[in-house]
Amino acid sequence: MRVTFSLSLLISVMFTIQTSAQEQPAASALSRAVVSAPNMQPAIPRPEQDVHAAEKLAAFEARTGQKPNIVIFIVDDMGYGDPGAFGGGAMIGAATPHMNALAADGLKLLSTYSQYTCTPTRAAVYTGRLPVRTGLIRPILAGDTITVNPWEGELSVAGLLSAAGYHSMLVGKWHIGEGEGMRPHDVGFDEFYGFYKAQKEYTQAFDPRRFPDLVLDPDKLERYQSIGSNNDLVYGLADGKTETVETIDSTEKMAEGDKMLRDYTVKRIKELSEGDKPFFISHSFMKVHADNFPSKEFRGASASKYPYRDNMVEVDAYIGDIVATLEDSGELENTFIFVTSDNGPQMDSWPDSGYTPFRGAKGTTWEGGVRVPGIAYWKGMIAPGQVSDGLFDLMDLFNTSLTLGGVDISALPDDRYYDGIDQTSFLIVEGGQSRREHVYNWLGKQLAAMRMREYKAHLLVTLAQEKFLYIDMATVVPTGLAPWLFNLYIDPKEEYTVGHRMNAWTASLGAELKAHAATFAKFPPKDSGL
Amino acid sequence: MRVTFSLSLLISVMFTIQTSAQEQPAASALSRAVVSAPNMQPAIPRPEQDVHAAEKLAAFEARTGQKPNIVIFIVDDMGYGDPGAFGGGAMIGAATPHMNALAADGLKLLSTYSQYTCTPTRAAVYTGRLPVRTGLIRPILAGDTITVNPWEGELSVAGLLSAAGYHSMLVGKWHIGEGEGMRPHDVGFDEFYGFYKAQKEYTQAFDPRRFPDLVLDPDKLERYQSIGSNNDLVYGLADGKTETVETIDSTEKMAEGDKMLRDYTVKRIKELSEGDKPFFISHSFMKVHADNFPSKEFRGASASKYPYRDNMVEVDAYIGDIVATLEDSGELENTFIFVTSDNGPQMDSWPDSGYTPFRGAKGTTWEGGVRVPGIAYWKGMIAPGQVSDGLFDLMDLFNTSLTLGGVDISALPDDRYYDGIDQTSFLIVEGGQSRREHVYNWLGKQLAAMRMREYKAHLLVTLAQEKFLYIDMATVVPTGLAPWLFNLYIDPKEEYTVGHRMNAWTASLGAELKAHAATFAKFPPKDSGL
Repeated sequence: MRVTFSLSLLISVMFTIQTSAQEQPAASALSRAVVSAPNMQPAIPRPEQDVHAAEKLAAFEARTGQKPNIVIFIVDDMGYGDPGAFGGGAMIGAATPHMNALAADGLKLLSTYSQYTCTPTRAAVYTGRLPVRTGLIRPILAGDTITVNPWEGELSVAGLLSAAGYHSMLVGKWHIGEGEGMRPHDVGFDEFYGFYKAQKEYTQAFDPRRFPDLVLDPDKLERYQSIGSNNDLVYGLADGKTETVETIDSTEKMAEGDKMLRDYTVKRIKELSEGDKPFFISHSFMKVHADNFPSKEFRGASASKYPYRDNMVEVDAYIGDIVATLEDSGELENTFIFVTSDNGPQMDSWPDSGYTPFRGAKGTTWEGGVRVPGIAYWKGMIAPGQVSDGLFDLMDLFNTSLTLGGVDISALPDDRYYDGIDQTSFLIVEGGQSRREHVYNWLGKQLAAMRMREYKAHLLVTLAQEKFLYIDMATVVPTGLAPWLFNLYIDPKEEYTVGHRMNAWTASLGAELKAHAATFAKFPPKDSGL
Repeated sequence: MRVTFSLSLLISVMFTIQTSAQEQPAASALSRAVVSAPNMQPAIPRPEQDVHAAEKLAAFEARTGQKPNIVIFIVDDMGYGDPGAFGGGAMIGAATPHMNALAADGLKLLSTYSQYTCTPTRAAVYTGRLPVRTGLIRPILAGDTITVNPWEGELSVAGLLSAAGYHSMLVGKWHIGEGEGMRPHDVGFDEFYGFYKAQKEYTQAFDPRRFPDLVLDPDKLERYQSIGSNNDLVYGLADGKTETVETIDSTEKMAEGDKMLRDYTVKRIKELSEGDKPFFISHSFMKVHADNFPSKEFRGASASKYPYRDNMVEVDAYIGDIVATLEDSGELENTFIFVTSDNGPQMDSWPDSGYTPFRGAKGTTWEGGVRVPGIAYWKGMIAPGQVSDGLFDLMDLFNTSLTLGGVDISALPDDRYYDGIDQTSFLIVEGGQSRREHVYNWLGKQLAAMRMREYKAHLLVTLAQEKFLYIDMATVVPTGLAPWLFNLYIDPKEEYTVGHRMNAWTASLGAELKAHAATFAKFPPKDSGL
């Protein structure tokens, strides 16, 4: 696979990225990051903070006699601004009291980054590696052919934690493959209860209001069904056992999907709390991905009454239910909780779509596409009322979960590059600082942008051809002679480039991009055929 | 004066606004508002809530033996998103812990509206009347000639409260006239310590970096100085005494302006807390109006390091200091506090400007121009942790302050129209609901838009000719055959009109606009020559 960088097209010594570099170039003067190993993303050293975190974890283990549980909530396509704690909530007619409470009583992360779409983000979270390295570079859609299983040889956080004594479980959306060898219970999860695909991939086959051309045309419908994509709520175990719990064959059934997932997680937490093993649960909502159909109980539950908004209220209520279950089971103080989304809102489903205050949306590397809400909550371990704009990449959940689970990150294989950073000390030490210096924003196989401190440098930009950001009607084009450079503190909406006239680091940011590019020369990426 | 409505230009029966109507037209089916008197803005009846509020106030008075103090903080040109509690703060490199704490411990108002610029908003707050009624329709600038004193015959909240036993005080920016008869201490404030104008009106005379054409050209500078606009920090009393405390003659001195104001309010609160009278203080910051020069102590105090951001940190710290003084003086539980801004951020001062997630900026009637942060805090009287998107117009501070001060609103003169609404019960009853059904957005003498529930109907729109919203390079144009209609719950950024195809209330909203227009036929507006 040829990894392309838009600026390699441009004749510019300053910004040409040399993928042939054999040595990792020195970081620029701007970078505080330090290389710990050739295959590990350089991180900002925070030695005192790290010691403090290690002591805090050791005290936790001594006190409780166990490693902490880990529960990660991933809401599908939720915009940065959707939760009230991030500016939306009641303001947009969908109050989110439960998420707000977790944010108020924990650490609200204002600079949390996902990948530009669903599959890449989830793959990155579970592998700790950029999607371009594993080949999981874009959403898998009905009819897609994957030539090489990208999971082959990959180690998932679920598998690593399972080997370390955890019970690992994915409840909900997977969307990183449904063929054998690519399913959650094939790649490290001890248990899977959920869906292989996104909501729309189910409902398109039986929603004549949205897809009359498919649903009401017998020939097309037959052809579509011949693809044979799995339409089930699936139960699977690591031993290979795979069962259909229910087949989704109506929008009404899809509407109840998240309720079933909530019920399952609630039931399993009660059971697991009786056992000896700590648990790692990725509770991955189907909602609020288009098309949205609220569960009966939540129809009209939001002030807005639009399905997306009702579904935000529903998702928020379920988070509340699951947190309450942890509390009732006596596990709340033993559980690290993280709440986030897999990418920005999908705006081309407007009027039934999410809210981001930023430019762009899902499918772009504008802030609107990749900046997501991040809430870290751990009763008694994360001090309440904290807010930070320190950089956090969702991939960091890989490393952080491993550290929480006592898995030695330095013992990971050295034949591949790890992009995640251990952010345990950032999250659990009061007033902790991020250890991440860079966030790279990839668009498929192309490096599109980088966030570093408050700066964002774009090599490629997605330009809407309409006021609506219909992703399929946008163009992706290289910037001019230099990157488009924004200062996100003074221009969070990426409206006005500061350029080199108002920024001293244009060359340095170029050097940082080169350093990143060099990691691909040393550790060639995989090609999944996607 | 002829009050113009853009749609009277359009041949459309549905939307033509008949300014000749003699009777107040019936409200539409959509409206919950009820007319209490011909000269009072109709309000949503909340009888139980009002009774509850009255009992709560009576209990307060019985307990403390006094009416509550009232402290209103107006930050100049602060954007909706600037405080952390409204989405900015640390995210944009300017943490605002003190405002955040007031919001978290009080009532955060997500749908608070100002007028489109400074002078109109302040005039509306102090008179409870739309600027178009008083003639204070736009900022007063150096060199402006005012033919008729708009204050003539007006009753200010400061004067009414003073007559009811309060000590009323304006500390800081006035900007509603500097000639005799228009000064704060001429129109009801017992005491004034502050500035007649906005920051830029001072610094333009001695900031050669921004205004070389004025400052470095002796001829122009002399002509400018001949205008004779007051450049002083002024101390004035209702008996007419007026003194210069200090003359502002450098950017360095302007930079310390808010520090002097803070010191004064702190000193006076200590003194007033020893006295018998409750106090009404409008603490009106000079910051963060362009151009921004942080006080020495706050240079580089923000993560962003830009002057606007440093000044946000400074303003926030001063709010903290004043609240701490109230606490130390034993007055915190006796004081109703409100924090807001006079309009949206002035974006044409970019890169040193504020942040709004909304469309538009100061000078427009887009949400970005008129939606401002609103925080109501009253220890022991307003339950903490509340958030509401109920409509609140800053004019409502007029009525609400009068009610808190025991002034009978129904005894106000009936020869003029009052646009404010008493929102006491909304603010002080836990879970209270707004009594306001409409917010009218005027652009000078033109009715430009109306917010009603989650809908916003625009008759006139401000269209930027540049990506930057340079107000002086924008055009104001009537919409087409129908208003531009937005649903702010699903489209808070006003990007996509829903139109009549997606909204059942297009005709009803037109009827509401007509009803508003009819009030001007019955109560003709004043013309100040502005």
